[in-house]
Amino acid sequence: METILEGTKAIVRIAPHHRTVLIGERINPTGRKRLAAELAAGNIEIVKQEALTQVDSGADVIDVNVGAIGVDQVTMLPRAVEMVQEVVDVPISIDTADPVALEAALKVCRGKALVNSVNGKEEILSRVLPLVARYKAAVIGLCMDEGGIPGEPQKRMDIAAKILKRAQEIGIPQEDVLIDCLAMTVSADHEAGLATLDAIRKVRTELGVNMTLGASNASFGMPDREILNAAYLALAIREGVNAPIVNVARVRQAILAVDVLLGRDEYAQNYIKGYREKQREGK
Amino acid sequence: METILEGTKAIVRIAPHHRTVLIGERINPTGRKRLAAELAAGNIEIVKQEALTQVDSGADVIDVNVGAIGVDQVTMLPRAVEMVQEVVDVPISIDTADPVALEAALKVCRGKALVNSVNGKEEILSRVLPLVARYKAAVIGLCMDEGGIPGEPQKRMDIAAKILKRAQEIGIPQEDVLIDCLAMTVSADHEAGLATLDAIRKVRTELGVNMTLGASNASFGMPDREILNAAYLALAIREGVNAPIVNVARVRQAILAVDVLLGRDEYAQNYIKGYREKQREGK
Repeated sequence: METILEGTKAIVRIAPHHRTVLIGERINPTGRKRLAAELAAGNIEIVKQEALTQVDSGADVIDVNVGAIGVDQVTMLPRAVEMVQEVVDVPISIDTADPVALEAALKVCRGKALVNSVNGKEEILSRVLPLVARYKAAVIGLCMDEGGIPGEPQKRMDIAAKILKRAQEIGIPQEDVLIDCLAMTVSADHEAGLATLDAIRKVRTELGVNMTLGASNASFGMPDREILNAAYLALAIREGVNAPIVNVARVRQAILAVDVLLGRDEYAQNYIKGYREKQREGK
Repeated sequence: METILEGTKAIVRIAPHHRTVLIGERINPTGRKRLAAELAAGNIEIVKQEALTQVDSGADVIDVNVGAIGVDQVTMLPRAVEMVQEVVDVPISIDTADPVALEAALKVCRGKALVNSVNGKEEILSRVLPLVARYKAAVIGLCMDEGGIPGEPQKRMDIAAKILKRAQEIGIPQEDVLIDCLAMTVSADHEAGLATLDAIRKVRTELGVNMTLGASNASFGMPDREILNAAYLALAIREGVNAPIVNVARVRQAILAVDVLLGRDEYAQNYIKGYREKQREGK
């Protein structure tokens, strides 16, 4: 099962035996006060530098989220997508909970975008999936619904299956649905990590679709977050995640290491290239 | 299935749902010129500091290997075991390929030791397993035999099953056999990592025994070895390794992170304790 995303020039292929695809998470004002303030002040140019920096660090796809207090997403989201596409040629992940802003962004986005995201709620499915189909995008389905995020892996799997079924019913092909089993904060619940890993394994085995994960949530409130994030990504990638949403500069080398160990990087050439680039930048 | 090892005072329990047990690998002259020279000169006292440092860093078991050119293991190995037991109370892993040195060390070792190691070769099984049984030790079985180290996971599994059967036939209980599926150098063969992980999963599923792994072999010849080792340990622990042989000071925090994510560290208390100790030592 291969998901194909397209930017203005670059094409990205997501599939179980390909190398892991990195979706850059940094254009997102959540928890980033300065970025939030700039966006609220209408300074949308700032996303250009964020996009360039992430692609330089090895991002394959750029997530674009402008959701913050005081930001009119319907105006700003499409502008942000245009700005990003002016400077980088990789595919875009359009990240919003507002279907109107989503459609405005899909209208201007060149190539084949990834819509981030739908979930199992009826209202969301019925409003967002038709947009995904109309603009021939791919879509991320989050394993949550009206009842919240279930603790049991089987229930997350059931939501994933429902999203996939509904997508296919309106003509979105199976390979254009990516599932996110949702990383939960492990400091709050010591079984949270395992529940997500088990859900990922189930989705991989039973649905066979490609998967993303915002792994850094897991380490919220913990010290040495990078060590936890790297370990979680290793485990999640082994279970089936192949396009995680990450702070690329921080975790790229750890992910390249996993690809080496899982036989997806012959002669370790990507790993060694990543190491050399890191050395060059003096990181 | 619980393996119990005993030192002069400390008891270590190895089982799938316990936290990961760390076997400290540093008392081993392979690749450590100064240590090799000291041992060859008869300066056996040096192992005391190596043992203390590793236990301070969180080692649960201390591996003792004095094999180097110019070292008479039959004399030196038991002395090294005695030295280590003078200063630390944790269990000992007696690491030698020489059955005479092994027996000499088992004679003086207090508590219940781990014998590192046997493999599937008939000559080794028939000479070493009776010693393991006589001294009521536990033993590590390496997945290799007269034919070398098989590439196919199933063949490694077959060797593990053979070692386990032979051990049980002479009265060594199943829980006293740990299997090492053998980490191979990934720079030489890009499928080597996956072969070992698949073998570990098979052994866990089909034999259910506890497992060790000398994971650092995998990164030989590669840059950023710590990143690769941490990723490999995360994957191997998830598949079933629960007592890896490691450079404890380097990888302890990464392993504690895996235990958090796999639900083996309630309230992340070991992880946070490890973090605080690391801070205190200014690492």
